[in-house]
Amino acid sequence: MKFSCLQENLSQGLNTCTHLAGTSRTSLPILNNILLTAQKGFLKISATNLEIAIETKVRAKIEKEGKITIPAQLFNNYIDLLPNEALNFETIKEEISIKSKKQSAKIKGISSDEFPIIPLVETKEKFLIEGIILKNALEKTIFSISSSEVRAELSGALFSFNKPEVNKLTIVGTDSYRLTEKEVSIKNTPSKTIKNLIIPVKTLQEVLRIIKDEGDVDICLSENQVLFVYKETELTSRVINGEYPDYKQTIPQAIRTKALVKKEEFLRTVKAASFFTKLGINDINLKFLAKENQLIISSLNSQIGENKAILPAEIAGENNEIVFNYRYLIDGLTNLSGDEVGLEIVNDDTPGLIKSTTDKHYLYLIMPIKNN
Amino acid sequence: MKFSCLQENLSQGLNTCTHLAGTSRTSLPILNNILLTAQKGFLKISATNLEIAIETKVRAKIEKEGKITIPAQLFNNYIDLLPNEALNFETIKEEISIKSKKQSAKIKGISSDEFPIIPLVETKEKFLIEGIILKNALEKTIFSISSSEVRAELSGALFSFNKPEVNKLTIVGTDSYRLTEKEVSIKNTPSKTIKNLIIPVKTLQEVLRIIKDEGDVDICLSENQVLFVYKETELTSRVINGEYPDYKQTIPQAIRTKALVKKEEFLRTVKAASFFTKLGINDINLKFLAKENQLIISSLNSQIGENKAILPAEIAGENNEIVFNYRYLIDGLTNLSGDEVGLEIVNDDTPGLIKSTTDKHYLYLIMPIKNN
Repeated sequence: MKFSCLQENLSQGLNTCTHLAGTSRTSLPILNNILLTAQKGFLKISATNLEIAIETKVRAKIEKEGKITIPAQLFNNYIDLLPNEALNFETIKEEISIKSKKQSAKIKGISSDEFPIIPLVETKEKFLIEGIILKNALEKTIFSISSSEVRAELSGALFSFNKPEVNKLTIVGTDSYRLTEKEVSIKNTPSKTIKNLIIPVKTLQEVLRIIKDEGDVDICLSENQVLFVYKETELTSRVINGEYPDYKQTIPQAIRTKALVKKEEFLRTVKAASFFTKLGINDINLKFLAKENQLIISSLNSQIGENKAILPAEIAGENNEIVFNYRYLIDGLTNLSGDEVGLEIVNDDTPGLIKSTTDKHYLYLIMPIKNN
Repeated sequence: MKFSCLQENLSQGLNTCTHLAGTSRTSLPILNNILLTAQKGFLKISATNLEIAIETKVRAKIEKEGKITIPAQLFNNYIDLLPNEALNFETIKEEISIKSKKQSAKIKGISSDEFPIIPLVETKEKFLIEGIILKNALEKTIFSISSSEVRAELSGALFSFNKPEVNKLTIVGTDSYRLTEKEVSIKNTPSKTIKNLIIPVKTLQEVLRIIKDEGDVDICLSENQVLFVYKETELTSRVINGEYPDYKQTIPQAIRTKALVKKEEFLRTVKAASFFTKLGINDINLKFLAKENQLIISSLNSQIGENKAILPAEIAGENNEIVFNYRYLIDGLTNLSGDEVGLEIVNDDTPGLIKSTTDKHYLYLIMPIKNN
């Protein structure tokens, strides 16, 4: 194998793939390596952790085709430090030599024969979405997905095509304590037979890494796999088999109290109140006074002290009260756009809703902490 | 105790002191607290870890004098989140209440009787230095001080008054593998009897935190203690008893090779070479070719690979070669000002010098790794 390419192009490609190497649950040394494949006018860089695989192409002048695997982190770090100029690569046995104007290096690799085969996805369904729209939707949902894998179906986001006729995709995340739902437009009408699927949160975190700015993402589905194609990069992952809970029934309908508050002030107040919550319960009490147009936030820990804040709020409906875990409140408020935030409450026993005032297609639901 | 003050002023004072609370080697709960003392027109905030104490004053309207200790981190975090407005404080037994426009809180404290007494320094000698000059000198020296306390005398910086007649102070740091020396001007002529002293590196890290910008630092010395006074803040610390090594003799005089190289390029090259050094030895070979005006940087790890870079350098003197630990090189280069850096070498057996081209009063010395 012999090729040359620009440092900048190679560095970009490596930054896309390297992160995945070394993230496998198994400790196979080959999974710390990336596979370099020099072929017909480009260099392909591949990394996998056996659950997710990423491949990207880098423009290169290929003198002799070939393959080698080399330690991902070392190679990425080394290339990052070189100046942006033409770099010349050549393999001799299981070693790659790198030459630039002022530097030369040799890095020991492992035969490409040992690198896992990245399965091809047999596309049965396909849809297209604008990269920025997908990125934004993932940022607003995946934080609420369970990090535990005890309930496998909750360790991923639901991609639901319940409105295919209007080219809508709904992305849902939950850890059973809170839930996010975001509806986005897709660029084509998927077939009527397209099924909902659950994509692992770790896969979606990698998808977030590869989407930079403009450009569409092609999402191809097979029975057990999903393929994301964005520019020169392809990301393959398993999907989660399982039944996603019927989450729609948890979204309260008979709202009794609606409040509109300034987001930043509310967030600061919740943070201040968080210091006085009970350890492991993290309970913050919200009281809605309709006539006074006030939201009262309070917390109490008999060991530490207590806190009470009165915020002005536009309140419609009846007086109400609910207790939330402050962490879930902070997560939701942090991910919400707009200067104001809407709160919708039924009672202290029913999930409460946090809504964006600028994005009608997003909702965040928090289970209440029930009073003793 | 009853007082009021502006959130901004209190927050500044707390940020100066809070860090020290909770850093004690002992786990006395009172040391996680700060002492608030309301007296004659100001609020005093004190924190100590029994080795270092910091006290600062905040402008406040005192209605009733008094003292209380409260959890430092909690109080600081809570005050930081309040808007900049007048805050009203009042103690009831061992609890403090805080009231602002929209919020009220109560925090449980501990009686001030349990707070350690901060010793007064009986000043025997005193000198004055510009804050920025002290800050700069400490930043360039304390990184080289030993983090181990096996040799107590190396766990601090030497403050040496070897040129009192010209108002000079020399600050020295070493961990016995490398050494820094920085000479600075002081603003007065200390008495002839002033003795050198060793100040713990942890104390100097705290001093760095309190110096913000303009303003002088008063340094007062007693037999066993040192007091730094900067604006409204006083920092008291023990000094280290012990004999500082006679470091002057390790500074090589009979330099055989001098080289001048571009700093950023050299630093990047050392970082790139660092990936190929032997684990635990971190050895990078520097070769000076006088006729060619080249500095050759190389490293080799038979498990990983090898690296060689040729940098242009202005070389005076003879050909030479030396092996350094790359970490010490990176530390030194990172702390050096100017676009270029000077290297001065005797041979592969004698410490090498790294010099700033913009600061004649600073030197950095590295022990070589000797060839087998």
